[in-house]
Amino acid sequence: VKDHVPILRVRGRLVVTMHADLDDAAAQDFQEHLLVAIEKRGAGGLVIDVSALDTVDSYVAQVLANTAKMARLMGTRTVVVGMRPVVAATLVRMGMPIEGVETALDVDDGLDFLDRKP
Amino acid sequence: VKDHVPILRVRGRLVVTMHADLDDAAAQDFQEHLLVAIEKRGAGGLVIDVSALDTVDSYVAQVLANTAKMARLMGTRTVVVGMRPVVAATLVRMGMPIEGVETALDVDDGLDFLDRKP
Repeated sequence: VKDHVPILRVRGRLVVTMHADLDDAAAQDFQEHLLVAIEKRGAGGLVIDVSALDTVDSYVAQVLANTAKMARLMGTRTVVVGMRPVVAATLVRMGMPIEGVETALDVDDGLDFLDRKP
Repeated sequence: VKDHVPILRVRGRLVVTMHADLDDAAAQDFQEHLLVAIEKRGAGGLVIDVSALDTVDSYVAQVLANTAKMARLMGTRTVVVGMRPVVAATLVRMGMPIEGVETALDVDDGLDFLDRKP
């Protein structure tokens, strides 16, 4: 039995917290789980909270960016929220900007963003 | 004890003035300090005033551009304001455009910009 990341519904959007101990297989699973949730439950938007992450490797960054692109193809906007300074610094210094992904400071701001730009 | 650059809160944004005597280590410190301030205090936007700079070397230009990218990943827009003519001319002549950074004439204009494009 797979232990899936809980996906909350808040203000009509899906909100999920990315866990710190995500290995490559788990990241893939996380992505699929999210896309199925969008299909089954619908979503006016998807908020991915990354505040639990102290580090992000290139694989996880890629999964994040790709998940947002996939959700977009399914008609759902993604906002990545809560990125810690050290993670933001690492991504930029390593030349791994998460291109084309909207960002916000925290979950509340992310939901506000989706309200403003549905 | 490190002597940090003061970060003001004006109209809900963070405003910081970049000092003239910024060596490489200080530039790095300036960047980290700003990112932590964004995380701790939140920011509807970040205004970096560079009017105190008579020269900008490629390293400082890079720090500026990267800081804006990092802040962006944390959900905060950056506007660089107050660039002096000689600095703007140098950056362009040396082929060091600060890509992807919004600019405005002064702090007030920078804040107006953030009000218009939240």
